[in-house]
Amino acid sequence: MLRLYFARGTCALASHIALAEAGADYTVERIDFKANQQNSADYLAVNPKGRVPALVTERGILTETPAILAFVAQSFPKAKLAPLDDAFAFAQVQAFNSYLCSTVHVAHAHRVRGSRWASEESSFADMKRKVPQTIGACFAMIEDKMLREPWVMGEQYTICDPYLYTIATWLEGDGVEIAKYPKLADHYHRMAERAAVKKALVEQG
Amino acid sequence: MLRLYFARGTCALASHIALAEAGADYTVERIDFKANQQNSADYLAVNPKGRVPALVTERGILTETPAILAFVAQSFPKAKLAPLDDAFAFAQVQAFNSYLCSTVHVAHAHRVRGSRWASEESSFADMKRKVPQTIGACFAMIEDKMLREPWVMGEQYTICDPYLYTIATWLEGDGVEIAKYPKLADHYHRMAERAAVKKALVEQG
Repeated sequence: MLRLYFARGTCALASHIALAEAGADYTVERIDFKANQQNSADYLAVNPKGRVPALVTERGILTETPAILAFVAQSFPKAKLAPLDDAFAFAQVQAFNSYLCSTVHVAHAHRVRGSRWASEESSFADMKRKVPQTIGACFAMIEDKMLREPWVMGEQYTICDPYLYTIATWLEGDGVEIAKYPKLADHYHRMAERAAVKKALVEQG
Repeated sequence: MLRLYFARGTCALASHIALAEAGADYTVERIDFKANQQNSADYLAVNPKGRVPALVTERGILTETPAILAFVAQSFPKAKLAPLDDAFAFAQVQAFNSYLCSTVHVAHAHRVRGSRWASEESSFADMKRKVPQTIGACFAMIEDKMLREPWVMGEQYTICDPYLYTIATWLEGDGVEIAKYPKLADHYHRMAERAAVKKALVEQG
């Protein structure tokens, strides 16, 4: 039995959807960011980085969304969530997810997590003002250069799709209109109709 | 034949070392960041993101360090650069590399790339001042919670090692003394003695 620690509105939704898509036997445990529960002693024992997601497995605890997504794909090969027998195609999946974690998620985090990288209120305000521009540029790049259809990698639904969907749920708060990116908007609506997405959203409460 | 685009002093060194460790047949091509060559039309045709590394393969072009590293490990299994037949152990490797790309590299980038996330000179200065603290915290986390010995994952040298070494080469410029982290300092020196590391550094000129 796998146990996923998540917080609402975070990238942990991507791993949650992937577990649901895989038909995995899992439970979820909510961490309350408003109460700073991610920095409680109990949770730091699970993930010393004080972040979500964290996935408790029989072998130990895994963190970091791209790693968990690939683990789910490899652990449940029948779900065909990644091209496991093709190193190049697998690397394309991983490159997309790596871009989401190291560039897109990071750009988004500057809206409310500026204190990770600066100390002055004026800097936080400056960072926050730039988010619509940086996130807009990221999503233009995805729309124009990366996103195939109907899924990120084309005909085959992969672990890229729940991750992109999860980050796209942040667009409105980031001041970016998804309607400017027609392929992305279609992808978002296509995702929202999937049973695994609906299941995960219900389970997150 | 693989072709790796790199720039000096960047994270592309990690992929370069991995190719050398794998015994791959490869060439390297230098991109001159001082001349802004990464944003030239020619290079944007290789990588629309205007970043390094980019790896040209027979099947197409790959980007993003964690994806390229896993690709090298999977493409050259005899080099044993990752635990390819163990999804959990592979996920641990990936989690480490994902932390380097999305947290450690990002913290470092605030020293000279503040304009990615803000617009005011005062914000850039504020970000730069905080880098010794943020990078110091990252390396304390790696030292205390992640780094086994003699290699990142223990007895087995993996694609985590060239990536950690590459980012550790930035420590002095980031205002962090590696000597504060004895296991990391040992790892750094152990890496510097490897033939593949020496080869890659010579090839980068």
